Amino acid sequence: MTKADDLLATLRAVNESAAFNRWAGIAVTQAAPGEAELTLVWRNDLGQYSGFLHAGLNGALIDTVCGFAAYTLAGPVLASSFTVNCLAPAIGERFIARGRVIKAGRRQIFATADLFAEKSGPLSLVATGSALLVPASAP
Amino acid sequence: MTKADDLLATLRAVNESAAFNRWAGIAVTQAAPGEAELTLVWRNDLGQYSGFLHAGLNGALIDTVCGFAAYTLAGPVLASSFTVNCLAPAIGERFIARGRVIKAGRRQIFATADLFAEKSGPLSLVATGSALLVPASAP
Amino acid sequence: MTKADDLLATLRAVNESAAFNRWAGIAVTQAAPGEAELTLVWRNDLGQYSGFLHAGLNGALIDTVCGFAAYTLAGPVLASSFTVNCLAPAIGERFIARGRVIKAGRRQIFATADLFAEKSGPLSLVATGSALLVPASAP
Amino acid sequence: MTKADDLLATLRAVNESAAFNRWAGIAVTQAAPGEAELTLVWRNDLGQYSGFLHAGLNGALIDTVCGFAAYTLAGPVLASSFTVNCLAPAIGERFIARGRVIKAGRRQIFATADLFAEKSGPLSLVATGSALLVPASAP
Repeated sequence: MTKADDLLATLRAVNESAAFNRWAGIAVTQAAPGEAELTLVWRNDLGQYSGFLHAGLNGALIDTVCGFAAYTLAGPVLASSFTVNCLAPAIGERFIARGRVIKAGRRQIFATADLFAEKSGPLSLVATGSALLVPASAP
Repeated sequence: MTKADDLLATLRAVNESAAFNRWAGIAVTQAAPGEAELTLVWRNDLGQYSGFLHAGLNGALIDTVCGFAAYTLAGPVLASSFTVNCLAPAIGERFIARGRVIKAGRRQIFATADLFAEKSGPLSLVATGSALLVPASAP
Repeated sequence: MTKADDLLATLRAVNESAAFNRWAGIAVTQAAPGEAELTLVWRNDLGQYSGFLHAGLNGALIDTVCGFAAYTLAGPVLASSFTVNCLAPAIGERFIARGRVIKAGRRQIFATADLFAEKSGPLSLVATGSALLVPASAP
Repeated sequence: MTKADDLLATLRAVNESAAFNRWAGIAVTQAAPGEAELTLVWRNDLGQYSGFLHAGLNGALIDTVCGFAAYTLAGPVLASSFTVNCLAPAIGERFIARGRVIKAGRRQIFATADLFAEKSGPLSLVATGSALLVPASAP
């Protein structure tokens, strides 16, 4: 088993342990040191009043994928703050969030994420964001 | 019927029209011009891996209550960006989000929100945030 | 000497030790536990291309006043991240930034700030923001 | 003269028209459609209390380079909000800010930026950020 396989298995176990992630249907689809990818298949329960993916779920995907990217380097983390930019209505059959650690300090980890919608054709960038995370075990 | 009663009825109808809000169990509990309050009763489905309210739901409540506060002044709006500060683990039997418009322009509306957890004893502030919204009907 | 007098003297000394603050003309005008106020008198050097206070200075005032509010509780701090909302063109004879700690943890301090412009008449709110700070001495 | 030369000349004229940018010594060193680069040579006036580049100047560079990147597509813009992540102490002989438009709508433009410090050796990433801008001429 490769390191990436290990990380993927670990993140999938963490993901399964989060009740909200199970309900929403968030799946971990990639993992590497400092990186993670989540996939969420659209269903009507996930919509806001116009039927797009709820901005809160944009945020949940961005926060979660940043946290999982940090987890690959630092183990369990908690989000201190996160920011979400909603570039375009989040309409698609599937949503793919890709997170990446920019800087991993001992006390704080900075990560960034992109959220894509998949319809027919190429992926479309619908949101970006960033998060600041702290290791749960930090002194 | 007072203006506040009207606003409350309007926001409740908007809230009902959002599938995610219905699933999560978000209820509109106060409305006034430029202000809104949401309440969410805890259940296990809403948790992250440690069993606290998922940071994504912190964000969903903050984004939604900012949007609803803006709605009272400008009708339907879309979030352009929002920021969430997670001050303390969100543990409680109920969560109460209070949003308030700081500045309503013709093209952009700035709002801010506080998220409180209710256990036994006084409300505890667990997150703050802000959002920038645009009227859906803007030119 | 009262505690507030002590804090004011301490923050003024910190402010004097920052070369940029001296150049810009930032003055500390209030201090209390968890709170600080800065004043900046307008001059042409501080403008952006339309002659308003440069958004970067909005940010510098907000970041600095949040840091000084944190300093009153935790001593020297460093900003990890800050967010600035520019509500209205920052036009005035003087600018007043008021910062307040929302939550002071051992490892992280959350603060928020308002920036007002003073012309003839009442103060006008031109920007808001928040910052996340870490004690310089944290483990 | 190429399109990029034109843009560079235009941004340099805008930069010269901003008094704060002249004082700080901000120079425009690259321009392309949707992109801009700024350079700032360190001097003591720019420091905070520990002698690093003041976090407010991190923010000013990030806000300005995002605005200039937007300018290349939309002409004059104003910042509505911006967020700055301070990854590492900003220590260097020169600072280089690179901004890039992520999404240019008719009413709102989203941009992102990286701030590097240059000492001996390779550039070091010291801050990242994003901004939301509105065209000054928007309806």
